[in-house]
Amino acid sequence: MTARKTPRADTRFRRLREKGSKDFDLACSIIDDANMGHVGFVADGLPYVIPMALARDGKHLLLHGSRLSRLMKSLAGGSPCCVTVTHLDGLVLARSAFNSSMNYRTVMVFGSAGAVTDPEEKIRGLDVLTDHLLPGRRADLREPTRKELNATLLVKLPIERFSVKVSEGPPDDPAADLATPIWAGVVPLTLEKGTPVPAPDMKKGIALPPYLRES
Amino acid sequence: MTARKTPRADTRFRRLREKGSKDFDLACSIIDDANMGHVGFVADGLPYVIPMALARDGKHLLLHGSRLSRLMKSLAGGSPCCVTVTHLDGLVLARSAFNSSMNYRTVMVFGSAGAVTDPEEKIRGLDVLTDHLLPGRRADLREPTRKELNATLLVKLPIERFSVKVSEGPPDDPAADLATPIWAGVVPLTLEKGTPVPAPDMKKGIALPPYLRES
Repeated sequence: MTARKTPRADTRFRRLREKGSKDFDLACSIIDDANMGHVGFVADGLPYVIPMALARDGKHLLLHGSRLSRLMKSLAGGSPCCVTVTHLDGLVLARSAFNSSMNYRTVMVFGSAGAVTDPEEKIRGLDVLTDHLLPGRRADLREPTRKELNATLLVKLPIERFSVKVSEGPPDDPAADLATPIWAGVVPLTLEKGTPVPAPDMKKGIALPPYLRES
Repeated sequence: MTARKTPRADTRFRRLREKGSKDFDLACSIIDDANMGHVGFVADGLPYVIPMALARDGKHLLLHGSRLSRLMKSLAGGSPCCVTVTHLDGLVLARSAFNSSMNYRTVMVFGSAGAVTDPEEKIRGLDVLTDHLLPGRRADLREPTRKELNATLLVKLPIERFSVKVSEGPPDDPAADLATPIWAGVVPLTLEKGTPVPAPDMKKGIALPPYLRES
């Protein structure tokens, strides 16, 4: 693992490690840690970026949504897209504003998605999306209805053309700044799950399922 | 505040409240809560989505980066962009996969940015970016050098054309599903700051600054 110790300021995120498109496993681990991504597409020459739930199924990203949505139609039709998944892992406080930055992990997946039309593959893909957020949840739910399935588009995007960037570790100040009496370091950031809040209309006596209990 | 109780599945995020472009204050509060956004732009007709630190200065979004980066040159040159800021606030567990979704707050700001060229405005804007992440931090840091300022592009994007979407509250299952013995509710998600980790090369005896202490 090669460390790049020269900060590059172009996004104000440091790029201590910049991984090429061959690091498929790293890309997958970043995707698998995520609940959502930001989907970019072009309409009438203009860029749009929309947050969406996502999951990985082997070598594909899965996205789903209403058959009526412009974005889903665009994705299902194979329009070029860029799906970016980012974890913000920390604020990196250097001795100067210039060298301050963030620790993060991000994957950009480029390409053209396509609709999943095979009924069994579609049902399985939607199950993958459900269980991605909370493994074990799908088994608790009723089966989807035909109407629900018909209203939903599932698309898959191959994880083939992608870029992974990971920035980690402490700030990297030039030697001249190290003597300054300024606190420097990292403030870690993590997305934490809180205590589950039951729906007001939930029947009494339903126990919290195992996948929602603190492990 | 109008509640839309009909879930729209097109992003699998519910849209209980969908705010028009007039809700400037709500857009600002979502931006001010964020450390970063996802910046979409078009190059050679293809979409790109890149995570960037950001801050708000009155009626503008501020972004900064290296003068050499393609993205920053594109933004400074006024190319159309879409900056999307999203907070994922919870997993919404309905009785069916179809009605399960997420609670979130998101703003999409559309338009064309432009470079901040006035030296004083640029220095002030960079200070706003630094203090946005940790109010009070800027005053602790040394002044930026001329070289650092020259290496950095600051751009501002007016918060004029934007779309705000907020989904909150419990799942919204159809009556027919309410009798099922399935746990339903919300798992809250929050981005938490952890204990600050001092840099290994920090001088001894530097106290944790007040803005890093637990309040």
